[in-house]
Amino acid sequence: MIETYWRQNVAHRMAVFELYFRKLPFKNGYAIFAGLERIIDYLTNLNFNKEDIDYLRKIGYKEDFLKYLSKYHFSATVRSVQEGEVVFANEPLIQVEGPIVDAQLIETALLNFVNYQTLIATKAAKIKNVVGDDPLLEMGTRRAQEADAAIWGARAAYISGFNATSNVKAGEKFDIPVSGTHAHSLVQSFGNDYEAFKAYAKTHENSVFLVDTYDTLRSGVPAAIKVAKEFKDKTHFLGVRIDSGDMAALSKAVRKQLDQAGFYDAKIFASNDLDEQTIMNLKMQDAKIDVWGVGTRLITSFDQPALGAVYKLVAVEDDNGNLKGTIKLSNNANKISTPGKKQVWRITRKCDGKSEGDYVTFADEDPRTMESIYMFNPKVPYINKTVGSFEARPLLHEIFREGKLVYKQPSLKEIRNFTATELEGLWSEYKRQLNPQEYPVDLSQKLYDQKMNLIKRNQKSI
Amino acid sequence: MIETYWRQNVAHRMAVFELYFRKLPFKNGYAIFAGLERIIDYLTNLNFNKEDIDYLRKIGYKEDFLKYLSKYHFSATVRSVQEGEVVFANEPLIQVEGPIVDAQLIETALLNFVNYQTLIATKAAKIKNVVGDDPLLEMGTRRAQEADAAIWGARAAYISGFNATSNVKAGEKFDIPVSGTHAHSLVQSFGNDYEAFKAYAKTHENSVFLVDTYDTLRSGVPAAIKVAKEFKDKTHFLGVRIDSGDMAALSKAVRKQLDQAGFYDAKIFASNDLDEQTIMNLKMQDAKIDVWGVGTRLITSFDQPALGAVYKLVAVEDDNGNLKGTIKLSNNANKISTPGKKQVWRITRKCDGKSEGDYVTFADEDPRTMESIYMFNPKVPYINKTVGSFEARPLLHEIFREGKLVYKQPSLKEIRNFTATELEGLWSEYKRQLNPQEYPVDLSQKLYDQKMNLIKRNQKSI
Repeated sequence: MIETYWRQNVAHRMAVFELYFRKLPFKNGYAIFAGLERIIDYLTNLNFNKEDIDYLRKIGYKEDFLKYLSKYHFSATVRSVQEGEVVFANEPLIQVEGPIVDAQLIETALLNFVNYQTLIATKAAKIKNVVGDDPLLEMGTRRAQEADAAIWGARAAYISGFNATSNVKAGEKFDIPVSGTHAHSLVQSFGNDYEAFKAYAKTHENSVFLVDTYDTLRSGVPAAIKVAKEFKDKTHFLGVRIDSGDMAALSKAVRKQLDQAGFYDAKIFASNDLDEQTIMNLKMQDAKIDVWGVGTRLITSFDQPALGAVYKLVAVEDDNGNLKGTIKLSNNANKISTPGKKQVWRITRKCDGKSEGDYVTFADEDPRTMESIYMFNPKVPYINKTVGSFEARPLLHEIFREGKLVYKQPSLKEIRNFTATELEGLWSEYKRQLNPQEYPVDLSQKLYDQKMNLIKRNQKSI
Repeated sequence: MIETYWRQNVAHRMAVFELYFRKLPFKNGYAIFAGLERIIDYLTNLNFNKEDIDYLRKIGYKEDFLKYLSKYHFSATVRSVQEGEVVFANEPLIQVEGPIVDAQLIETALLNFVNYQTLIATKAAKIKNVVGDDPLLEMGTRRAQEADAAIWGARAAYISGFNATSNVKAGEKFDIPVSGTHAHSLVQSFGNDYEAFKAYAKTHENSVFLVDTYDTLRSGVPAAIKVAKEFKDKTHFLGVRIDSGDMAALSKAVRKQLDQAGFYDAKIFASNDLDEQTIMNLKMQDAKIDVWGVGTRLITSFDQPALGAVYKLVAVEDDNGNLKGTIKLSNNANKISTPGKKQVWRITRKCDGKSEGDYVTFADEDPRTMESIYMFNPKVPYINKTVGSFEARPLLHEIFREGKLVYKQPSLKEIRNFTATELEGLWSEYKRQLNPQEYPVDLSQKLYDQKMNLIKRNQKSI
């Protein structure tokens, strides 16, 4: 496509693409946007190196085009919602405005990063929602879909409230707290629980013992207690981890054993294909679990492993140099794109900061200059309300201006705090696990009218 | 754990770990092993660089241990089944023998690579199985779980019979054929199908037109036909692609339009959340689809996004310097590991090369010296047979000997051909889509007896 644009002398035609998804994952009431850090890395280093050019030559591209590519620099303007923002379906999360070749070239990479990281951040927020203040550990690397997923997934989980990861590389790269315990093989290699825990206690200031290698209640926990007593001056006995069996019954029995030995503060760590469903059930059964280790089900987003974000051309320069809205039609109403270069506004009540909905406008509309806004559901316009005394916060921020990075990413901890605060401001009906309310994402009257006009005009011309 | 072993002066204790999965994915009858190329890359470059050491210092590791790590070299022996091999549950796919620190250190990386790539290769083989000789394109990058998954997933799909990928980076890295079509945005940017196809035809020797941007039958296909006729000397009209709507009905109508215009050879490409189920259904409905583009459902392994491979300690050096079998117990019979350093033998009939089952033995047993083998199901020993006149092929090959690479990987094309040949030799009852037969993976009598003895001994000591 890049070659087509270039050879047809329209490579520099201005275009606006927007990235959004059409449906929230997991039938959830919201999503957490993630992937921006990765996109900034990617766009900052985007070029065609010698190996790339050689390869493209080998598969048949011609010298004049290769010369163009070898000098290529990214020069578009990129606007994005902040990383960690609470977001919804059918609103632009990223907007790329620039020469059509620039905007087109980065489509696949942007979708790849945002689709995965937003999915994991959203799944993590759902899990965080059920554990409350219990510590939450990400430990899915062995089951992640290759290395990048493990590392960027750990970061996405941290944004949504996980406390630590077992992936040391992610810890090193992003300064996420790392946490882990030993494996069954340590116990096996020392021949029994007691010898293994002793070796571990001798070499660690803080100890968590994995107690289910042979028999949790008859061997693992008794050995842990024995070592904790014998080495009480050498190691701080944090607790024990259970990784198999009936977590509800087992955790209660383990708690009793620990309490009877006087270790009231020792924690019980649990892991074993946990997710928000199993955790909710374990809590209902009053399982005595203090720390939750979540692996496979989070890092692969097991119940829905893909988010369907798309990247659509919404406006393109006409022969007179004006940006004009453009549309993609479909028999499926949900798949029809909304034309026009936009801004998204988060509308909250002035009195208490609680959410009223998101309001999508043309980029040059500003609800802050309005007394009240008429908000209506673009699919069912008779569902509407007029909102006065509101605050409107624009969600799309400039990240790159004509190819140059102009945005300073907050630290990962700031992003994490931002997510927690934003989720706080969201009404609880959007946050419940089952059948949440649909958060309003409404179009301004002007945007809606243009969309309807374009649909009609296109249908007529066909 | 590495620190514990090192400080307790048992870092050099010899150990054997084996990697295997306990259950085939998708209730399939077989899996295709992939991930070895990536493991070779990883182990060849394994070390702790200055940044790693600095980070570990920052999070509290002490200087003496950091000094040990900074001089660390991988020195274990690694045996593996060949990439592209047909494999089954409960047989070692990789075996690592060496100092316990070496074997332990690489656990997570090996699992990460094998779990993902084997999953995708297996899913791809299932899809290949239903399309027969129709061309099959991998086009899932935008939905893959981050960048590594897109690239290594494309390679895994190619191993199992996919013909090309739309990921140009994977094409460059692995010399996989690349193939793709233009996007809806090309049509939108030129304002209509005809102008867009014309621009594409002018700049491409071969053209496939995406015809569903506005209206497939009333605008897309007629425009494609018009351009194909007008530019018949400039471009080779390969066909059209449909990406939405009722694929069965639409493909028949499109076929009729193409045929009526005389383009009998033009192909119909289809894509739209396809997988083996939808493809099978479309074929049953006699859809006129010639080329299948598969994205999301393959690259994320949508119906089961994780393979549960584990990495277990099976033998460890005792105080007299002898390797001794070790076991991990569990209330769940399937989770009990099989002790001992092993070899896996593929048993086939001498007469026609067809599969009899896999036979797992101690590494020093050799069925090739036997007249016949007694094969029995280790869970249900009364299911058994005696096999004579057989060939036995060992599946585990030495890849690294004491840290040094001693294996030459076949080319990717050779691996792909190997997979096709191996699948050919497998009885069709193991290959069917629904309820395949269970392929026998049996233990030698010696291995079985040691496992039972170790279970008894451990239970007694508890």
